[in-house]
Amino acid sequence: MEYKPVLGVRTIYWEDGHVMMINQRILPKTFEMVQCNTMEDIFHAIRDMTIRGSPAIGVAGAYGVVFAVLEKNPATKAELLDVVTKAKEYLDTSRPTAVNLMWATARMKSFAEGLEEGADFAKEMIDEAQRIADEDVRINKRMAQNGATLVPNNANVIHHCNTGSLATVDIGTALGVIYECNLQGKGIHVWVDETRPRLQGARLTAWELHQAKIPYHLMADGASGLLMRTHKIDCVLFGADRVAANGDVANKIGTYNLSVVAHENHVPVYAVVPTSTIDLTIPSGEGIPIETRGKEEVIYVDGSAVAPEDSEVYNPAFDVTPHQYITAIVTEKGICYPPFTESLKELFE
Amino acid sequence: MEYKPVLGVRTIYWEDGHVMMINQRILPKTFEMVQCNTMEDIFHAIRDMTIRGSPAIGVAGAYGVVFAVLEKNPATKAELLDVVTKAKEYLDTSRPTAVNLMWATARMKSFAEGLEEGADFAKEMIDEAQRIADEDVRINKRMAQNGATLVPNNANVIHHCNTGSLATVDIGTALGVIYECNLQGKGIHVWVDETRPRLQGARLTAWELHQAKIPYHLMADGASGLLMRTHKIDCVLFGADRVAANGDVANKIGTYNLSVVAHENHVPVYAVVPTSTIDLTIPSGEGIPIETRGKEEVIYVDGSAVAPEDSEVYNPAFDVTPHQYITAIVTEKGICYPPFTESLKELFE
Repeated sequence: MEYKPVLGVRTIYWEDGHVMMINQRILPKTFEMVQCNTMEDIFHAIRDMTIRGSPAIGVAGAYGVVFAVLEKNPATKAELLDVVTKAKEYLDTSRPTAVNLMWATARMKSFAEGLEEGADFAKEMIDEAQRIADEDVRINKRMAQNGATLVPNNANVIHHCNTGSLATVDIGTALGVIYECNLQGKGIHVWVDETRPRLQGARLTAWELHQAKIPYHLMADGASGLLMRTHKIDCVLFGADRVAANGDVANKIGTYNLSVVAHENHVPVYAVVPTSTIDLTIPSGEGIPIETRGKEEVIYVDGSAVAPEDSEVYNPAFDVTPHQYITAIVTEKGICYPPFTESLKELFE
Repeated sequence: MEYKPVLGVRTIYWEDGHVMMINQRILPKTFEMVQCNTMEDIFHAIRDMTIRGSPAIGVAGAYGVVFAVLEKNPATKAELLDVVTKAKEYLDTSRPTAVNLMWATARMKSFAEGLEEGADFAKEMIDEAQRIADEDVRINKRMAQNGATLVPNNANVIHHCNTGSLATVDIGTALGVIYECNLQGKGIHVWVDETRPRLQGARLTAWELHQAKIPYHLMADGASGLLMRTHKIDCVLFGADRVAANGDVANKIGTYNLSVVAHENHVPVYAVVPTSTIDLTIPSGEGIPIETRGKEEVIYVDGSAVAPEDSEVYNPAFDVTPHQYITAIVTEKGICYPPFTESLKELFE
């Protein structure tokens, strides 16, 4: 079967010396591609969340390294490594929580280290970034197929944030599982957490499901508990920005509340992540840095103030869900069950 | 000490044959009083949430009955009872979950039943509605004083929805406790759940705290769990729209999630309610009708669509928190602890 992206176009791709990406800041009102031409453009696209979703920003980071090489045009391998190292250091600061960004820039650096003196550095680095992007699609497909085995026919699932094509190069992680169930004709209905404050569920996931004609209900994040108490819910699905060695999961703010309430209601909780999201160097979630974002994200919605404008605001972008609330972690290499300290480690052996 | 309303004016009051109320639909951008002149005006003010908060809509309901009497001008007691009965039936349908509305209209009806033939019905009914309003203020003050005994000095509290002066005639229930702690110089800091979808926390509670110069941080509802895991939180405070005989609490959507997460983190959970909110005729929360509101409340914020406009939406206005997650129920008559089936019953003996 010919490959066709879920949204008709990849969320991010390389074309004629520049990067094209879907502008996720203005969905669902407007679908627009934006062009990035420099490392600086990539840095701001990540920080401003023009592109978001841990696998997608990983790929963006790889292209950012490519731009650095194109801009500096290093003549020697020593110069190349200097350019790539500085680019990685800079790009990694754009957002601190998702490990895929650091993973992708590290892979670009490691690849540069393996290049021969005199190679066509620019072409080689572009090719490596392309491989990362292409692999992301293949990995997502395998994750989706693995995850779909956990979802019964005619399932009702709760989904948090956006983990779809928009969060990756194509297909998605948790939402990829939902696409796969739909492809397999299983019949699936999605309860979409709107995911305040950035409303990725309302703006992006509902939009993706709408495009894909998969039935869904949108709801306030606080409604998930009553839903679980009054409706049959088969599972909770979300992605992650970083998974610690013990299975603690850093993901979009609100994931912890949702997981605790699901656990209390005996609803299985599945985190769907590529192995590049798993960070065995961090023993537990306590070691994961949590990004705090600006107060304007909570005070304003589409430019309209919904609170006194000089309010103090607590706006962590992520939270950590301790492993005891996670039923399984789905990866492209298989499904991990507790004890995660062992099952996650086995993935890398 | 001379009585002065917390906001400088009561949320709702009778003046020269009409009802004045703060328009809660346009706060915090605009502070405006609206005038109601008919029972129909009152009905729509409750349904459209121009006035909201269970004690406040109870008082509005009482004034709605007064308007019915003024409009029909019954000549005999039989006519009066007919007018009052029909007005109660109509007004009670404006919002189904809060029991204070039914409690207040029932009290007006019961009062009418006790009037003598030939009495000045209009004047008597206005006086009774006034007594309900005045009692609400006194009851709130006692609740606030009782609740303040549970809050330590320099406390950090999480508050859900709006339960302040705006939710009552004056002072408030859970927010009344916060005002009282502040009056007593205890030093209190409030973590304000924004309370999607209607954002009563952001729009109303933050605005009230801002007016009162009480320090607060606003946050997305999904951030409460990370907050409890990373900060010392002394208690969770909220009001209720109905409390069942076993202590199950119907309150604004999101209360159940918050309470489960608080329970998991060993943070005490206090519901602050007047005894008029306790409905001993309903054995458990399962018997409490839950209002479902329109999809536009979730899809639009201040007129701007944040999701595909034809999305299906799940929008329950309330949820039920089972009594096992409630540490204590604070009333004007004292503080009830588990087993609530006994302690709540004792309040009425």
